[in-house]
Amino acid sequence: MTLPLLTEVEKLPTGIPGFDLIAHGGLPAGRTTLIVGTAGSAKTIFSAQFLAAGIQSFDQGAVFVTFEESVADIRRNLAGFGWDIPAWEAAGKWSFVDASPYPLEDGDVVGSYDLGGLLARIEHAVRQTPATRVVLDSLGAVFMRFADPATLRNELLRIAAALKDMGVTTLMTAERSEEEGPLTRTGIEEFVADNVVILRNLREGERRRRTCEILKYRGAYHQKGEFPFAILPGSGVQVIPLSAMELRQGSSDLR
Amino acid sequence: MTLPLLTEVEKLPTGIPGFDLIAHGGLPAGRTTLIVGTAGSAKTIFSAQFLAAGIQSFDQGAVFVTFEESVADIRRNLAGFGWDIPAWEAAGKWSFVDASPYPLEDGDVVGSYDLGGLLARIEHAVRQTPATRVVLDSLGAVFMRFADPATLRNELLRIAAALKDMGVTTLMTAERSEEEGPLTRTGIEEFVADNVVILRNLREGERRRRTCEILKYRGAYHQKGEFPFAILPGSGVQVIPLSAMELRQGSSDLR
Amino acid sequence: MTLPLLTEVEKLPTGIPGFDLIAHGGLPAGRTTLIVGTAGSAKTIFSAQFLAAGIQSFDQGAVFVTFEESVADIRRNLAGFGWDIPAWEAAGKWSFVDASPYPLEDGDVVGSYDLGGLLARIEHAVRQTPATRVVLDSLGAVFMRFADPATLRNELLRIAAALKDMGVTTLMTAERSEEEGPLTRTGIEEFVADNVVILRNLREGERRRRTCEILKYRGAYHQKGEFPFAILPGSGVQVIPLSAMELRQGSSDLR
Amino acid sequence: MTLPLLTEVEKLPTGIPGFDLIAHGGLPAGRTTLIVGTAGSAKTIFSAQFLAAGIQSFDQGAVFVTFEESVADIRRNLAGFGWDIPAWEAAGKWSFVDASPYPLEDGDVVGSYDLGGLLARIEHAVRQTPATRVVLDSLGAVFMRFADPATLRNELLRIAAALKDMGVTTLMTAERSEEEGPLTRTGIEEFVADNVVILRNLREGERRRRTCEILKYRGAYHQKGEFPFAILPGSGVQVIPLSAMELRQGSSDLR
Amino acid sequence: MTLPLLTEVEKLPTGIPGFDLIAHGGLPAGRTTLIVGTAGSAKTIFSAQFLAAGIQSFDQGAVFVTFEESVADIRRNLAGFGWDIPAWEAAGKWSFVDASPYPLEDGDVVGSYDLGGLLARIEHAVRQTPATRVVLDSLGAVFMRFADPATLRNELLRIAAALKDMGVTTLMTAERSEEEGPLTRTGIEEFVADNVVILRNLREGERRRRTCEILKYRGAYHQKGEFPFAILPGSGVQVIPLSAMELRQGSSDLR
Amino acid sequence: MTLPLLTEVEKLPTGIPGFDLIAHGGLPAGRTTLIVGTAGSAKTIFSAQFLAAGIQSFDQGAVFVTFEESVADIRRNLAGFGWDIPAWEAAGKWSFVDASPYPLEDGDVVGSYDLGGLLARIEHAVRQTPATRVVLDSLGAVFMRFADPATLRNELLRIAAALKDMGVTTLMTAERSEEEGPLTRTGIEEFVADNVVILRNLREGERRRRTCEILKYRGAYHQKGEFPFAILPGSGVQVIPLSAMELRQGSSDLR
Ligand SMILES: Nc1ncnc2c1ncn2[C@@H]1O[C@H](COP(=O)(O)OP(=O)(O)OP(=O)(O)O)[C@@H](O)[C@H]1O
Ligand SMILES: Nc1ncnc2c1ncn2[C@@H]1O[C@H](COP(=O)(O)OP(=O)(O)OP(=O)(O)O)[C@@H](O)[C@H]1O
Ligand SMILES: Nc1ncnc2c1ncn2[C@@H]1O[C@H](COP(=O)(O)OP(=O)(O)OP(=O)(O)O)[C@@H](O)[C@H]1O
Ligand SMILES: Nc1ncnc2c1ncn2[C@@H]1O[C@H](COP(=O)(O)OP(=O)(O)OP(=O)(O)O)[C@@H](O)[C@H]1O
Ligand SMILES: Nc1ncnc2c1ncn2[C@@H]1O[C@H](COP(=O)(O)OP(=O)(O)OP(=O)(O)O)[C@@H](O)[C@H]1O
Ligand SMILES: Nc1ncnc2c1ncn2[C@@H]1O[C@H](COP(=O)(O)OP(=O)(O)OP(=O)(O)O)[C@@H](O)[C@H]1O
Ligand SMILES: [Mg+2]
Ligand SMILES: [Mg+2]
Ligand SMILES: [Mg+2]
Ligand SMILES: [Mg+2]
Ligand SMILES: [Mg+2]
Ligand SMILES: [Mg+2]
Repeated sequence: MTLPLLTEVEKLPTGIPGFDLIAHGGLPAGRTTLIVGTAGSAKTIFSAQFLAAGIQSFDQGAVFVTFEESVADIRRNLAGFGWDIPAWEAAGKWSFVDASPYPLEDGDVVGSYDLGGLLARIEHAVRQTPATRVVLDSLGAVFMRFADPATLRNELLRIAAALKDMGVTTLMTAERSEEEGPLTRTGIEEFVADNVVILRNLREGERRRRTCEILKYRGAYHQKGEFPFAILPGSGVQVIPLSAMELRQGSSDLR
Repeated sequence: MTLPLLTEVEKLPTGIPGFDLIAHGGLPAGRTTLIVGTAGSAKTIFSAQFLAAGIQSFDQGAVFVTFEESVADIRRNLAGFGWDIPAWEAAGKWSFVDASPYPLEDGDVVGSYDLGGLLARIEHAVRQTPATRVVLDSLGAVFMRFADPATLRNELLRIAAALKDMGVTTLMTAERSEEEGPLTRTGIEEFVADNVVILRNLREGERRRRTCEILKYRGAYHQKGEFPFAILPGSGVQVIPLSAMELRQGSSDLR
Repeated sequence: MTLPLLTEVEKLPTGIPGFDLIAHGGLPAGRTTLIVGTAGSAKTIFSAQFLAAGIQSFDQGAVFVTFEESVADIRRNLAGFGWDIPAWEAAGKWSFVDASPYPLEDGDVVGSYDLGGLLARIEHAVRQTPATRVVLDSLGAVFMRFADPATLRNELLRIAAALKDMGVTTLMTAERSEEEGPLTRTGIEEFVADNVVILRNLREGERRRRTCEILKYRGAYHQKGEFPFAILPGSGVQVIPLSAMELRQGSSDLR
Repeated sequence: MTLPLLTEVEKLPTGIPGFDLIAHGGLPAGRTTLIVGTAGSAKTIFSAQFLAAGIQSFDQGAVFVTFEESVADIRRNLAGFGWDIPAWEAAGKWSFVDASPYPLEDGDVVGSYDLGGLLARIEHAVRQTPATRVVLDSLGAVFMRFADPATLRNELLRIAAALKDMGVTTLMTAERSEEEGPLTRTGIEEFVADNVVILRNLREGERRRRTCEILKYRGAYHQKGEFPFAILPGSGVQVIPLSAMELRQGSSDLR
Repeated sequence: MTLPLLTEVEKLPTGIPGFDLIAHGGLPAGRTTLIVGTAGSAKTIFSAQFLAAGIQSFDQGAVFVTFEESVADIRRNLAGFGWDIPAWEAAGKWSFVDASPYPLEDGDVVGSYDLGGLLARIEHAVRQTPATRVVLDSLGAVFMRFADPATLRNELLRIAAALKDMGVTTLMTAERSEEEGPLTRTGIEEFVADNVVILRNLREGERRRRTCEILKYRGAYHQKGEFPFAILPGSGVQVIPLSAMELRQGSSDLR
Repeated sequence: MTLPLLTEVEKLPTGIPGFDLIAHGGLPAGRTTLIVGTAGSAKTIFSAQFLAAGIQSFDQGAVFVTFEESVADIRRNLAGFGWDIPAWEAAGKWSFVDASPYPLEDGDVVGSYDLGGLLARIEHAVRQTPATRVVLDSLGAVFMRFADPATLRNELLRIAAALKDMGVTTLMTAERSEEEGPLTRTGIEEFVADNVVILRNLREGERRRRTCEILKYRGAYHQKGEFPFAILPGSGVQVIPLSAMELRQGSSDLR
């Protein structure tokens, strides 16, 4: 096992305007990145755009695993950014894995969650499409079941290991109650994850400002601190790198 | 399933003066919006005005589901805004579903809550009226029963799914103890809900200022940040959009 | 049930100097108002003055239900404001309902609290006197027994419903540990109550300032924010409305 | 039971220099006052001085009930203020009731606390001396046993009622962990007590400043806010009233 | 039992440079002083210096009871201050009582802690040496076992009483997680202890400043507030009294 | 056991640029140092660089015990700093002990953790290599299992004692949720550890700044406060000592 020296971990360009600049190339390839944010902080849009740009700019297949919103809702919600998901589904570029809850009639909840079965469904979708990029949005509901931190950690590691084996680059969203304070509910996810990106929707007086920060990339360089971003109707997330310099890059839709 | 592209989620104009401007058209149509606020922050008035304006400006039927105040109290409390609810009830424009507690003599509380029965009663009222707009005020008392976050989430999803099936646009109120800090008691509702509006009654020195903020609209554009509003005797909530520009709009009572 | 339109909820002038100005007439008639404050914030004096002014200025009978202080202590403590409670008792204008604890010898506490019996005693006193105004001071000790929020809510609603049936206007005091932060211990009372008044004893540097705020009046207009007040020996609470304008009003003792 | 009107609750001059000025006469006579402070805030010195001044200036007998320090330690610790407690004990002016813990050899603690027995011992000491003034220092250790707030409240009321029956004026100390935040550990004592005095040892930068505040006197006037005080070797607590005016007063040692 | 009047509690000069000035003579003789500080705040050095200075300046024997660090480590760690502990041990001036944990192979912990046995070992060492000064460093690990505050209090009192019986002057260290906030984990130790000294390692911007404060000395005068100190290689703790005045004093190594 | 006097605890130069200056020589030799930081604060890079510099500058063997990341990931992540770990492994300079979790298929976690077995594996690797430097990264996952603080403390002491017996100098990483507040989750590790270093990734406005602080070195001098550091691609951690003075030192790669 000889490694080419002086090489940081490889990156997969996302195609999200501005992000690849602050990410010094994109997301760590073949690994899972945790994307943390409050309600409405654009976790779903950012993740979906990672898939959409993969299809549009790099012709890379996509799998979207939804744990919260219904598949129909996601299609509808993302239409406003010009992403014709049904067309991509028809073209075999985009697959959904529906892990969204089917509300139980009797108010009870399913006792045990079959993570093994879920991973098998994801793998099937990844091979079928075939997919280079995967999104899991969001694991909050699943993690809520694990009172025991050791179990939570084990499940997180299982998911990350399985996705690494599939060779895909993954975005996984996580929920946060407040912009300040601990990053995650349990304080475990951010340590187990190889990479962490924070989306913030900051209250400044009575205005809001959205920022994006790469908190941690194991084995890779990235720009530090928060960068403002906007959600533009018709196109989606646009991160504003502070420096005017632009890296050469395959993404055609960068400003 | 082909969707017209570049189209954000449809909106239902509320007719609440100023709100449709900041909401870029109104509430997401056919969906549920969570409206969060402290005691006395105008959650009930805002919700009722959504129904009243529907009747007055758009001739759309209304269903008000009350979990806290008695039906008689709601009629009485809203009379001061010129809303003749009894007349609307008589005209088949407005129906109440009374889910308010009947204080038990012996101090005990009912063990299990029959959400299925409640949804059936709501559906009956919606079809009977027939109603385009529904208010649920407030689920706080019901949610208090669910110690387990997974159960709470499931119940929330059941309610939202059932209302979506009825084709109505819904406002659902939620209680918050302080203006700062976590949005909801459990930190779950705001993630499960498609849309979140925050009403604030801010203490500035020893004065109070009311503001309204759209925190999250899944799949739709809206103005960001807080906008001041007033409760005017005889007319109700009046949101002040910061920009002087006014969108053309069907609401006749806007300033 | 036809209601005269454009009419807010009726008010009962309290006769507390200054308060009826900020309250736009007084307390919501026939309803219960929760009065929240820290130790020594004047909850008892304010409540008692509501009764005393009722007798002195409007010849309205009064019932004082005490859960904490002994009847003898209340008589004694209020004498300093010129309120001759024993005389009013003799004249059938003022009745006490003694729900104060009888300290148990053996250190145990009574297992279940008989709210039904208490309400019967209150009703008896109200009819006997007869009373227009009722004070419950304070329910903190009773509420302490209810670990379960659903039970607490049910008991609160039972009390409010029973008092509404008696046709009286009621003040109910509640305790708060700090001037900042959550309004009540459980975060439930302020949502269940129709009306909430906050008394504060604010620390400014090493001085104290007392203020009174109407936080919430369901169905009724009131002035917003905090108004300073003083406790004057010989006369009691005097609220200072910021505006110099004075509403005409039956209260003879208003400056 | 006819009361002289316009009279606030009677006061017992303490003889503590400066305190009777801010207290508008002294401590409420025949009642219990809670004195709250952090470790080292002078609760014990203040309380003991109340007894010492009673003997020195008013020839009133004293009972000191100790729950924490040993009797020998108290005698020793207070000698530095010129109070010859052994002489007063010999002269029948001062009695100790020793409720301090006898450390158990085996590390176990006594299961139930016999409050009835303690009250009997206090009553015996009060009658024997005979005493006008009583100190209980401090109940913290006793209260620690009562997990249940209803039990704590009941015990507090029992003690206060028993002391009122004995006709004595009492100071009872309570412990507080921080200068800011809730007044007491449980948030109950300050509501149950008729009167509350706060001693503070404030950190200002890296200096300390001691202040004394009367937070609450039921039925009685007092000055509001915090007044600086010093502990002077050889004489004890000296409160500095902000106003230079001095009330005439029997206390000879006032400045 | 007649006490010389106007005399505060006796002090034992520590010989720690500067400390005896702010302590108005030293530590309360024959009593236990609690010394509280965060990790690395110099609790162990301060305590050991109290013993070393006793030997060097006053020829008083020393006993060091260690609950955390091994005896070998303590000898080694303190060598850098020029204290030749092995030589003092050989000369019968310094004895260790090793109560440091012997890490258990199987990961279990001993169920009950034999405080009686420990006190016997301490007493033996005190008599043998013979010792005037004793250090207990630190009881944190032992106290961690006592979930019940009443037990903790009882054990603390047992230790203090036993040490008082031996006639020694004792320093006992306690751990604190943060420089701000509650003084101790349980909020009990600082009330039970007769004397409390706080060592702080304050973060000012990105610098650190060490200060020493005497919070409480029962029955004795001391300077108030925080005084800066340094840890000097070769000599140890040096407290800087703010005032330049120096009390005459037996300690030869004072500046 | 005679010790050379006036000698502080020996240091092992780390070779981490700048660190040995603020550390006054390096890490305490033959002991364990706890290195605490938030997610992404460079704990792993700092620790690995301690090993890499040992090989490169001092020809000292290294053992890296990983509890979180896989061995393959660590090799890959550190390649970007020019550290050819596989070559060092081949040359018998660097050994891994893989204690990283093997995600369990069935979602369960192993009941008891075999610390004895782990220590045996570490010892084997240390003797085999042979190693002077050891890293344990990170114990967070292991410590999470110990609900009982006494057990956690015992395990920590066992590890430190075993490593001291092996004669190695050790870095052990620990996780922290926030830059402010308590140092560790339990508040125990920082007291048990002989030495504590804090790595911070501070948010200043919307920028980040990395600093390194030696909080505690038992028995040794070090510079106080926080020193900025950078992570340089191709070389790793570079601490910036504030003073320009440079100690002579064997590390060739210092600026
Ligand atoms: N078509 C659109 N045009 C402009 N802005 C939009 C559009 N759709 C959504 N948004 C913005 O994006 C926000 C929602 O983003 P998103 O759903 O990605 O958040 P999220 O972090 O996933 O939230 P949650 O945790 O609730 O799932 C909306 O609140 C709105 O401000
Ligand atoms: N007729 C009126 N005229 C003017 N203002 C009114 C009128 N009725 C109510 N208000 C204002 O509206 C407030 C109550 O609003 P609302 O009942 O909608 O609050 P809420 O958020 O539903 O409170 P809760 O959580 O207690 O139900 C009152 O406190 C008062 O300030
Ligand atoms: N006769 C008087 N003259 C002037 N001020 C008085 C008089 N009696 C009481 N006060 C003031 O009123 C305060 C007590 O008010 P009150 O008993 O109403 O408070 P509270 O909010 O009911 O407190 P708690 O929660 O302890 O019952 C006293 O602390 C004192 O400052
Ligand atoms: N003789 C004295 N001369 C001057 N100041 C003294 C004297 N004796 C005590 N003090 C001061 O009084 C303080 C102790 O006061 P006291 O024992 O009354 O506090 P406390 O509030 O009862 O504390 P605890 O809660 O620990 O019992 C000492 O810390 C010291 O500052
Ligand atoms: N020889 C020395 N020269 C200079 N400073 C030293 C020396 N030895 C220790 N120090 C300083 O003293 C600090 C340790 O002090 P000490 O061990 O007394 O702290 P502590 O409060 O007992 O900590 P813990 O709670 O971890 O036991 C070190 O962090 C270092 O800054
Ligand atoms: N090759 C590289 N070049 C530059 N910077 C890098 C490189 N590799 C890593 N980094 C920086 O180092 C950070 C990760 O450091 P490291 O893995 O040591 O943190 P950690 O404290 O161990 O985090 P965790 O608690 O998650 O294990 C990355 O977030 C990145 O900022
Ligand atoms: Mg989402
Ligand atoms: Mg409401
Ligand atoms: Mg009261
Ligand atoms: Mg005391
Ligand atoms: Mg120590
Ligand atoms: Mg790491």
